[in-house]
Amino acid sequence: MKLYDADYAPSPRRVRIFMAEKGLTDVETIKFDLPKGDNLSDEFAAKNPLRKVPVLELDDGTCISEAAAIYRYLEESFPENPLLGTSAVDKAVIEMWDRRLEFAFLYPVFQSFQHGSGIFKDRMTPVPEWAGEARNIAAEFFDILEQRLAESTYVAGEQFSAADITAVVTLDFAKVIKLRPGEQHPNILRWYEQIKQRPSYSA
Amino acid sequence: MKLYDADYAPSPRRVRIFMAEKGLTDVETIKFDLPKGDNLSDEFAAKNPLRKVPVLELDDGTCISEAAAIYRYLEESFPENPLLGTSAVDKAVIEMWDRRLEFAFLYPVFQSFQHGSGIFKDRMTPVPEWAGEARNIAAEFFDILEQRLAESTYVAGEQFSAADITAVVTLDFAKVIKLRPGEQHPNILRWYEQIKQRPSYSA
Repeated sequence: MKLYDADYAPSPRRVRIFMAEKGLTDVETIKFDLPKGDNLSDEFAAKNPLRKVPVLELDDGTCISEAAAIYRYLEESFPENPLLGTSAVDKAVIEMWDRRLEFAFLYPVFQSFQHGSGIFKDRMTPVPEWAGEARNIAAEFFDILEQRLAESTYVAGEQFSAADITAVVTLDFAKVIKLRPGEQHPNILRWYEQIKQRPSYSA
Repeated sequence: MKLYDADYAPSPRRVRIFMAEKGLTDVETIKFDLPKGDNLSDEFAAKNPLRKVPVLELDDGTCISEAAAIYRYLEESFPENPLLGTSAVDKAVIEMWDRRLEFAFLYPVFQSFQHGSGIFKDRMTPVPEWAGEARNIAAEFFDILEQRLAESTYVAGEQFSAADITAVVTLDFAKVIKLRPGEQHPNILRWYEQIKQRPSYSA
């Protein structure tokens, strides 16, 4: 299999960390330069019509895009060190936190960055007022995450999971809109220090 | 188990259709009036800090929110009539389409409705310019869906799956922003007629 990847972008990093946690360290990788538009070719659109990375291309040519769907493929194919849970409840709770993080944290951070910076204005129409509002939505999520991490060691419970990967990648990416946890978030800071000590963090 | 539900809202309907497909027809349901703000109480925030329906409350009090996480719990607990796939590839492809539908179709339709109508302006700040741009993003997805359904019977392949549920619920909900498939989308229209004939459609 082969990973279409990019530096700086949060979703490809989610997959790289997931792979590192699974011990999948020798997957062939093709790095795209997103500002240059490597992902906008028709050839790549045949792999993902949304023209986004990451895409995992299997040996038979099947292409899986969307970080969470790549998580799923890898978890099913390499079940050791489960990151998506094993019981019905654990699987659902991890998926719940992963979606909350995507919709209420990663997506608004991303929107705020794109609409506020105009970085991709060659391929979208920035709405600066929405950048500000999206930033507020992302900032509100810090309180929800703080409250959650006051109750549990990791985001989805007592075990490290894919939800921690999505959370730490978003937290790091949120630097681009100058959104950082502070003294009012002691549990996020405690968790953050723990996650940064995992070897996969540098993936 | 008990479902916190609401009329008109797309995500609760996704869960109702999923349950109907699984033959789970006698689940206790609590209907919230969202414009009235039934979902904004602190009591409900203890069940879902994002104060959104649907929430599935299990008999031990565990609360699962996010439609896709409820799908996951129900699929694992009631594996007959699988809707999330059985092989690693099928599971990943269904999840990929479900996420594409959520991020590139359901979410922009929803954003366009909320920001354009001001329906929830008591609890958010509408950005009318973003409503227009989000509508454009949703409209673009019609072409991706049309192309996909020219190649396959259902959204994620030759079997009906959870991705079809997310797609049809979004298609119906898109009426609120006057976004409909047209003659240029013959495959969407063919698929739509098929889906409407399933008994679960009325859920």
